[in-house]
Amino acid sequence: MKTQVAIIGAGPSGLLLGQLLHQAGIDTIIIERQTPDYVLSRIRAGVLEQGMVDLLREAGVHERMDKEGLVHDGFELAFDGRRERIDLHGLTGGKTVMIYGQTEVTRDLMAARQASGAKTLYGVTDAQLHELKGEKPHVTFTLNGESVRLDCDHIAGCDGFHGVSRQSIPQGVLKEFERVYPFGWLGVLADTPPVNEELIYANHERGFALCSMRSPTRTRYYVQVGSEEKVEDWSDERFWDELKSRLPADDAARLITGPSIEKSIAPLRSYVVEPMQYGHLFLVGDAAHIVPPTGAKGLNLAASDVSTLYRILLKVYREGRTDLLERYSTVCLKRVWKAERFSWWMTSMLHKFPGTDAFSQRMQQTELDYFVGSEAGRTTIAENYVGLPYEPIED
Amino acid sequence: MKTQVAIIGAGPSGLLLGQLLHQAGIDTIIIERQTPDYVLSRIRAGVLEQGMVDLLREAGVHERMDKEGLVHDGFELAFDGRRERIDLHGLTGGKTVMIYGQTEVTRDLMAARQASGAKTLYGVTDAQLHELKGEKPHVTFTLNGESVRLDCDHIAGCDGFHGVSRQSIPQGVLKEFERVYPFGWLGVLADTPPVNEELIYANHERGFALCSMRSPTRTRYYVQVGSEEKVEDWSDERFWDELKSRLPADDAARLITGPSIEKSIAPLRSYVVEPMQYGHLFLVGDAAHIVPPTGAKGLNLAASDVSTLYRILLKVYREGRTDLLERYSTVCLKRVWKAERFSWWMTSMLHKFPGTDAFSQRMQQTELDYFVGSEAGRTTIAENYVGLPYEPIED
Repeated sequence: MKTQVAIIGAGPSGLLLGQLLHQAGIDTIIIERQTPDYVLSRIRAGVLEQGMVDLLREAGVHERMDKEGLVHDGFELAFDGRRERIDLHGLTGGKTVMIYGQTEVTRDLMAARQASGAKTLYGVTDAQLHELKGEKPHVTFTLNGESVRLDCDHIAGCDGFHGVSRQSIPQGVLKEFERVYPFGWLGVLADTPPVNEELIYANHERGFALCSMRSPTRTRYYVQVGSEEKVEDWSDERFWDELKSRLPADDAARLITGPSIEKSIAPLRSYVVEPMQYGHLFLVGDAAHIVPPTGAKGLNLAASDVSTLYRILLKVYREGRTDLLERYSTVCLKRVWKAERFSWWMTSMLHKFPGTDAFSQRMQQTELDYFVGSEAGRTTIAENYVGLPYEPIED
Repeated sequence: MKTQVAIIGAGPSGLLLGQLLHQAGIDTIIIERQTPDYVLSRIRAGVLEQGMVDLLREAGVHERMDKEGLVHDGFELAFDGRRERIDLHGLTGGKTVMIYGQTEVTRDLMAARQASGAKTLYGVTDAQLHELKGEKPHVTFTLNGESVRLDCDHIAGCDGFHGVSRQSIPQGVLKEFERVYPFGWLGVLADTPPVNEELIYANHERGFALCSMRSPTRTRYYVQVGSEEKVEDWSDERFWDELKSRLPADDAARLITGPSIEKSIAPLRSYVVEPMQYGHLFLVGDAAHIVPPTGAKGLNLAASDVSTLYRILLKVYREGRTDLLERYSTVCLKRVWKAERFSWWMTSMLHKFPGTDAFSQRMQQTELDYFVGSEAGRTTIAENYVGLPYEPIED
């Protein structure tokens, strides 16, 4: 089997890259370990930056998003008995975010891929990457009991944190940066109307809480829990009680509860590898970096990696600019580190850290007080939240 | 002996408060443990915020400052081989800072006090504060071998971190917040022309360095050193070599060295007590809070406390508004915490922290990169550096 760009992983990054390349006449094959239904069952992010929305439009996968997505002009920060709005639109000269679940993005991209006729192989096992620095890069795997060899020019590793791509890079090549936070997020998905039109990020002495949504009838709520907590110990009732206890009184009184349709605990971690390229292999999104979800940067950062790789590959195939391939990692990492910083900072500012001394607690409260009270401070929050500009691939 | 306001400590805060009150016709007596020469020999800060400059003008102690002080429109941040200017004037709508040494401020205030005829008692020992919550607050002390009792309405504790004022408040009343940083500043005063017209704050892998000045012919330079370092181990030559190694190459090449006229190591600490009032006693400046010197907030924060206490006492004596006395601590602490935050943040961002993991190091570099690269980020630095507005004493 042969293609120009082999894409490992059929999540939103792999599918989006595939769609963009397909539109440009560049041939791709995507391989995926799971089934389509499994991919769609993963409940993830729901806040899209303007840059990602634009990229989905560029990929022609925007019709349903434009119809069903919710444009948000701002969000709320609740702390110290206050509820303060970050006016994204006003502070960034008109930028906004789009509320549209990752599941829906993936569904739209799957449909576009199917319509395009480009090949996606699901249920692939034993994937291995070969000759990443050699003349004939290729991927081998098993599909329906048969061994397959896929020859290609380039490999895009879009297979997430636990995928084979990063693990295929020899020991000692990558430098790892990591921070594991001493807590997790317990998330509940429910078919209830959102408590507020915009998201509420709450800093509370009992711990962080977030009121998010997927649509006008589907909510996604979170409470910070200890790292040792088990989801079985959290009945719906206990979850709703805990959430209410952390929200401003007005919001707690207005909150409509309902049975959970999904409930899970996710750990919080910051993680980056450098570089994001090894020979013909390009790591994209979670395969190279993880952010804690505070600030909603994970999927958006994958999208900017996709944009960078797509633009470089366009120049490679159309203009023979193979020199640009070496720039992929540098270009991506500039934006990755800034998004890591914002995610770390939002996490640090909004969560309760076990065992923190009194001075650190006051620094946290004062950060919130200062940043929310200063227009320049609010602007730093807003410009990061809507997404910093994509970095150009050439100086 | 009797006065309206007894002021403990004849450093710049005590003298400034005394001068302002004297001009308003409110009687003060200042007591000081040391001699005037000793007070003047303490080498401290040299960057005055606009608010402090205005307060010195209000006190009529500005003639020499306006003649000899250097108005700075900006300062430089050096990191990662870059040298980036923070345009204070441009980013804050025209605000600036004044370079004028604390020693000079103190000298001017001493002269004004002497000219005014108001009483300053130097060489006082055994000072004790009495009846702070009672009907007859008073101070006792020994002067020239004689026991003295000073009756007063109010006591201003302007006697610094180690003074008697804070220690006179019963155990359990004050809540303490503290952070001790694992390094100090080795500072050298020299009669050499400054390496740069504006201050340079340098983040370097060998540690922080600061190029400051007191006048066009007197420089004050610092390098971060380990907490265990001893000043005896630092010859002038070693100091200059270390400083040069941490500066951008152009600055290092241009640096003019000379014999040190003062050399000392200061530890770095953040410290706050709450509340800043106990009955008739009001803690001012270092008696209530310490900031690490990064950001030059120590003296300026004392000045804003002085301003708050002065404005409250004016209303007390002129309008009988004794209700405002209870607001002193709340009003001061709003600004104190914000300055503590900025000083902690500048310290965190610019120093090398022993034993820091790779992720934290990158967060530090990225903070610098983001804040300096974003206009909103630069504005947060500038508006804090020139000084946040003084808080009103009434809502």
